[in-house]
Amino acid sequence: MTSQPLINADRLWTRLMALAEIGATPAGGVNRQALSDGEIAAWRRVIGWAREADLTPSTDAAGNLFLTLAGCDRAAPPFLIGSHLDSQPTGGKFDGAAGVMAALEAVISLAEQGDAPARDIIVVAWMNEEGSRFAPGMMGSEAFTGERDMDAIRAARDADGVSVGEALDRFHEAFPVMPHRPLGFAASAYLELHIEQGPLLEAAGCTIGVVTGIQGKKTFQVVVEGAEGHAGTLAQRERRDALAAFARMASALHAEIGTIDAEIKFTIGRVVVVPNAPSVVPSRVSFSIDLRHPDNAVLDAAGVRIAILCQENAAPCMVTVTPLVNAPSNAFDSRLRASIAEAAREQGHSAMEILSAAGHDARHLAKIFPAAMIFIPCRDGASHVEHEWAEPDHVAAGASVLAQVLRGLAFAPAIET
Amino acid sequence: MTSQPLINADRLWTRLMALAEIGATPAGGVNRQALSDGEIAAWRRVIGWAREADLTPSTDAAGNLFLTLAGCDRAAPPFLIGSHLDSQPTGGKFDGAAGVMAALEAVISLAEQGDAPARDIIVVAWMNEEGSRFAPGMMGSEAFTGERDMDAIRAARDADGVSVGEALDRFHEAFPVMPHRPLGFAASAYLELHIEQGPLLEAAGCTIGVVTGIQGKKTFQVVVEGAEGHAGTLAQRERRDALAAFARMASALHAEIGTIDAEIKFTIGRVVVVPNAPSVVPSRVSFSIDLRHPDNAVLDAAGVRIAILCQENAAPCMVTVTPLVNAPSNAFDSRLRASIAEAAREQGHSAMEILSAAGHDARHLAKIFPAAMIFIPCRDGASHVEHEWAEPDHVAAGASVLAQVLRGLAFAPAIET
Repeated sequence: MTSQPLINADRLWTRLMALAEIGATPAGGVNRQALSDGEIAAWRRVIGWAREADLTPSTDAAGNLFLTLAGCDRAAPPFLIGSHLDSQPTGGKFDGAAGVMAALEAVISLAEQGDAPARDIIVVAWMNEEGSRFAPGMMGSEAFTGERDMDAIRAARDADGVSVGEALDRFHEAFPVMPHRPLGFAASAYLELHIEQGPLLEAAGCTIGVVTGIQGKKTFQVVVEGAEGHAGTLAQRERRDALAAFARMASALHAEIGTIDAEIKFTIGRVVVVPNAPSVVPSRVSFSIDLRHPDNAVLDAAGVRIAILCQENAAPCMVTVTPLVNAPSNAFDSRLRASIAEAAREQGHSAMEILSAAGHDARHLAKIFPAAMIFIPCRDGASHVEHEWAEPDHVAAGASVLAQVLRGLAFAPAIET
Repeated sequence: MTSQPLINADRLWTRLMALAEIGATPAGGVNRQALSDGEIAAWRRVIGWAREADLTPSTDAAGNLFLTLAGCDRAAPPFLIGSHLDSQPTGGKFDGAAGVMAALEAVISLAEQGDAPARDIIVVAWMNEEGSRFAPGMMGSEAFTGERDMDAIRAARDADGVSVGEALDRFHEAFPVMPHRPLGFAASAYLELHIEQGPLLEAAGCTIGVVTGIQGKKTFQVVVEGAEGHAGTLAQRERRDALAAFARMASALHAEIGTIDAEIKFTIGRVVVVPNAPSVVPSRVSFSIDLRHPDNAVLDAAGVRIAILCQENAAPCMVTVTPLVNAPSNAFDSRLRASIAEAAREQGHSAMEILSAAGHDARHLAKIFPAAMIFIPCRDGASHVEHEWAEPDHVAAGASVLAQVLRGLAFAPAIET
């Protein structure tokens, strides 16, 4: 038996679906990439709902969105909850958006009960979690925690040559009167709800995942440099064909790294060929590598082998392997995890501990204050796809557990780290 | 000792360089793809020069440009000379343009001598020789000879989804008063001057290449279909990663087909990955194959193996291999070849017989009336690159030989096939 949810489930679902209209794709998904017009429209809609409940919007130099419900003690470190509003180019309705909307609904529901919380509660939407338009992702949370320099973030460019800096300035211009907070601040805790993006909760018939930590992740950008030539005239032996070298590398990487064990995840997701014309020998291939594993030792060893395999298969081309993300696996705050498990039990939802296979902004926040995550199931474990789906009951259950944890902790003193 | 050229070498070079300003790239090359604004501008400039010499422009349903110098007998089959005005995206100043401008200069020089030719002489610029924007290339000449249906040609689309039909209608609208000829007509002969796009003339110190024929060519479009998924959560064993399958195919193809013998040319020049995001397992990879060899038996056997290697490496994805171009090697008209060799000797230019490694529109015209080609050297054999270069003396020599052959034949009865 589950108890009455602490939030308004219908309002939450209706708003989540309304948000999914922004950047909606014909196949039922969402294309709302970081700092796009779609994300501007999503901000406007979310800010509108927040204002109705007396939450105050603000932003920072990294383009993060903060929606603050004032607490009794404005000087106490606030309680931070949220996720992200950007999507993959062929993403779904829930990845990121479910977490922001569940957080907003939890705060609004608490506010409707009348009592102000002991401290400020801030709903946050982090900038560019996905990293599909501007690589690598999680720029907003990494800027917030100081892990990445704003100059380096602003310098990254999308496929059309637009820099994060240009896109960010344009984004801020769309919200001219919104106050800017200094980048980064102390918080008492960070909580994030997210769809699992894997099949484990569904397979176990569990509604709530108490996330123990996030598997480690490394990403690389690899550039193969050869020489352009005419496909009909340049003899094979005189070619420095960047695509041929890439094919050898990618084949060797998949064969070795992709088969290390059952837990390894190895992906070459993005490939750009220059000049990419049928009758021209390619001069340049750049590609992305995404590598994940829960064991940091396996991850490190695989990272070394990736560089070696690229070099071994490069000749007669040149190859450069640039590490981008190096995020070891982590463990979330034990007291927050216990609070989530306790709230799920009290509300009658089945719950289990689960390791996050995907990366999340919570990984970065966990380095500077107590953080944890709540997972809800998604159909067939499918995410980063247009048919991504979470059941309305599961969204409501997750938001209700989030609201209970929030009510328990935002009225209490800060957790000691 | 070379004799005085039959053409105005300075005018030819000046105009060729002026033409290269249209679509000029920062690195000194030309990006003037088929049916682009750049090609419209190139037509305007070339038509302007043609009108000054009383040549009359016309076009056809395939977007070919014809510039006619009227002969004494308007009913006799005309003499056709030319090449193409479109370029690769990172092409050079000479590929195609040198042939059109040499043809125009030869006709203008003859016209300036006062006597009208026995038959019409028509300078032609064929539509979409390169095939980089719309694949496959040589659409204009194949439509002219009836080898490809106009409906099929009009249905092909570029990377932005624009069809040839849409681009062609827009192109024709840019020249509203230009007469349209019926598609295809009988001609007494076709001659085309082109840079060699290979190193043989330069290595031999020869100025004029008498082209014996064109090596055979096959092209294919291959589509690998897998399933999209989250790079961090979907287990390797459950993936249908289209990029991983492509890497195996491309690696196997390069290893086997690319090493058949010293004469084989095998190129994967264009690769499109969907959705092409760093943290999404690719669902679809489509790629082009360009295969060339002077021996049709080798070409046919390699074509069979390509389909087999793609199938063998596809699982757990699906693969579709679609043949596009199937052009066997051919031999050009022996009487035209003899006329070219004779003109070179009379003018004192070193000449040699040479097989064309690259494909040209002349391949198609040769099927319906006598055809031949004149090659001139290009630096380091480099073509389809921005630093492509031909010496002014070589351009002038080629145009002068072209003019002499034209003078000899356009005043004479048609060659018997």
